[in-house]
Amino acid sequence: MNLSNSIGIVSAKRAQFDTPLTFRSGAVLPRYELVYETYGKLNADKSNAILICHALSGHHHVAGYYADKPENIGWWDNMVGPGKPVNTDNFFVICLNNLGGCHGSTGPSSIDPETAKPYGANFPVITVDDWVQSQARLADLLGIQQFAAIMGGSLGGMQALQWSLTFPERVRHVLAIAAAPHLTAQNIAFNDVARSAILTDPDFHSGNYYQHGVVPTRGLRLARMLGHITYLSDDAMADKFGRELRNGQYNYSYGIEFEIESYLRYQGDKFAAYFDANTYLLMTKALDYFNPAHDFDGNLNKAFASAKADFLVISFTTDWRFSPQRSREIVRPLLHNHRNVSYAEIVSTHGHDSFLMEQPHYFDVIRAYLDNVKQECNS
Amino acid sequence: MNLSNSIGIVSAKRAQFDTPLTFRSGAVLPRYELVYETYGKLNADKSNAILICHALSGHHHVAGYYADKPENIGWWDNMVGPGKPVNTDNFFVICLNNLGGCHGSTGPSSIDPETAKPYGANFPVITVDDWVQSQARLADLLGIQQFAAIMGGSLGGMQALQWSLTFPERVRHVLAIAAAPHLTAQNIAFNDVARSAILTDPDFHSGNYYQHGVVPTRGLRLARMLGHITYLSDDAMADKFGRELRNGQYNYSYGIEFEIESYLRYQGDKFAAYFDANTYLLMTKALDYFNPAHDFDGNLNKAFASAKADFLVISFTTDWRFSPQRSREIVRPLLHNHRNVSYAEIVSTHGHDSFLMEQPHYFDVIRAYLDNVKQECNS
Repeated sequence: MNLSNSIGIVSAKRAQFDTPLTFRSGAVLPRYELVYETYGKLNADKSNAILICHALSGHHHVAGYYADKPENIGWWDNMVGPGKPVNTDNFFVICLNNLGGCHGSTGPSSIDPETAKPYGANFPVITVDDWVQSQARLADLLGIQQFAAIMGGSLGGMQALQWSLTFPERVRHVLAIAAAPHLTAQNIAFNDVARSAILTDPDFHSGNYYQHGVVPTRGLRLARMLGHITYLSDDAMADKFGRELRNGQYNYSYGIEFEIESYLRYQGDKFAAYFDANTYLLMTKALDYFNPAHDFDGNLNKAFASAKADFLVISFTTDWRFSPQRSREIVRPLLHNHRNVSYAEIVSTHGHDSFLMEQPHYFDVIRAYLDNVKQECNS
Repeated sequence: MNLSNSIGIVSAKRAQFDTPLTFRSGAVLPRYELVYETYGKLNADKSNAILICHALSGHHHVAGYYADKPENIGWWDNMVGPGKPVNTDNFFVICLNNLGGCHGSTGPSSIDPETAKPYGANFPVITVDDWVQSQARLADLLGIQQFAAIMGGSLGGMQALQWSLTFPERVRHVLAIAAAPHLTAQNIAFNDVARSAILTDPDFHSGNYYQHGVVPTRGLRLARMLGHITYLSDDAMADKFGRELRNGQYNYSYGIEFEIESYLRYQGDKFAAYFDANTYLLMTKALDYFNPAHDFDGNLNKAFASAKADFLVISFTTDWRFSPQRSREIVRPLLHNHRNVSYAEIVSTHGHDSFLMEQPHYFDVIRAYLDNVKQECNS
């Protein structure tokens, strides 16, 4: 990765919240911590803040690197930094590890002060709207009444959309990238298989595996392998792996024959070694539940009637997890409600993963859009 | 199911083969049994035989029902019977449980006479060509030198294609339905996740679970759930299940929320209760290995140069497992080699599963094609 114009050394901060948070499910979390990072400077009237929301396996470390771990570069460092599309010379950028996460914010692996044990199965099932509520409290703490923009890819884009509905006055621009207004049956089905792999892993122990000194590695590995299939396009997989054999010939065994198997198993093993299975479950459930139309008899036009923001919606041609058609399902109700909407369908071979990748048209669209947003902010 | 024009009561037969069979892998099976069914009458010059090859989870019971189990109707009873597209008034139809199967033919769960224990992990990894070899021996036993037609859907279609290459003189017509000339990286990836679920199930015991009195139910269940996602089209799932909730509201739990979850888990449980995990592994590996171009430097034109049959290739518009594009990849090298090829792309909403379903255009195409084949056979 090119670090020549990286934001450079960054460090994570922590915020403690002692006011109970009531979830959509009715569950209450008496107190919680959020870990977050910020880049750039908040201007005098606090009008130049951008919130970046992360997707399923993301976290607060979006850009730059740590002094003691220079190899640990943020997951969207190509997008966020001085002179980059999300230009930290212009904007004050905030990103946090979502509640329920496993990168420092309070989550299932955190110690529940009531029991002095990890929350485990007791951590509440969380929704996108719950995250927005918790993020708003962080904004309050930082003195940000209104974001210049809130943006994210995939599940991150859904959070950005939800912000425009839950707090219409608190966000001027929403950038929803490779997102969808809700999951389809097929999307839910993939999540259900991934969750079933974790839930039926004998090491899952009903979510309280921490006390047993084990982790449901097998289930988490399978979930991630399956996830990777949906992140890549069929074409990208064909180009990258095709039917390439690991050892040049068939071995007629259940070991690795094809390069694609090697890739999937490697990705599965790597992920299972650091990610928390309960967090994975929570994230996929938040995806399943996300549906702004749910409270409006399935009518997305009505759901978006309360939105006041302007919108940039971006999709990628080979994304079959959340295809361009799904982004157009976001655009239509926004137009119906006379919102300002820009829509870009980016030609890309990288499937759903495209949103993480530096591609000229894609980056130019975001750069141009945010340069306009910058003009609205007092310097 | 409408049984008014079913072939009626049928019964399975067994054939024993005592000549060792050498597999592509080099492994040798000293002896084996195949279970099969036949419908209709073989004509005097034995020119009216049709072989039906089954797909991943299929078996020999294609049509009719058993006297003692009238509810056990063949999996392609809508297609095969008197007056049906595969008309048993005209043809002598044969179908067998493939070697390595779990419905009566010798497979991993069979007792190995050498050890008096189930073969388990010792059963050789099998290829489509190995199946064709074993099927040819059954044809020999029945005195059939040349099939009027060999047909199948999905993996069954691949066997039909392989017949035209391994024994070009022994098949006049090949009907390859919802098939592909080889798996893509994405196809292999799905198989690898399914296999990994089984291989990492603690009850798998390296394939020798029979001796442990357990079966890798969890893994097999996940494999089948995942399979079902690839058998149905996104649209069909949306139409059938959408975001329909099981109990009309969100429960914020890991139980069944959506109808699609209920469907998948039911299918997974049902399958895991009767199918053998080792057979599932073998079937998916046979799919992975199938690639007629493998021995011809990846050149499918060269691979099909030896074929002498006429071909009917059929695909379904919403099949994303083996899409119409994949069927056209079969058609092109056949045309290149000046074979007679008919190709039909059937508009259907049912995805890969379409090949099992009665749909007028689809059935009419097969009926018309086989009526022509009938004209070639002496009565």
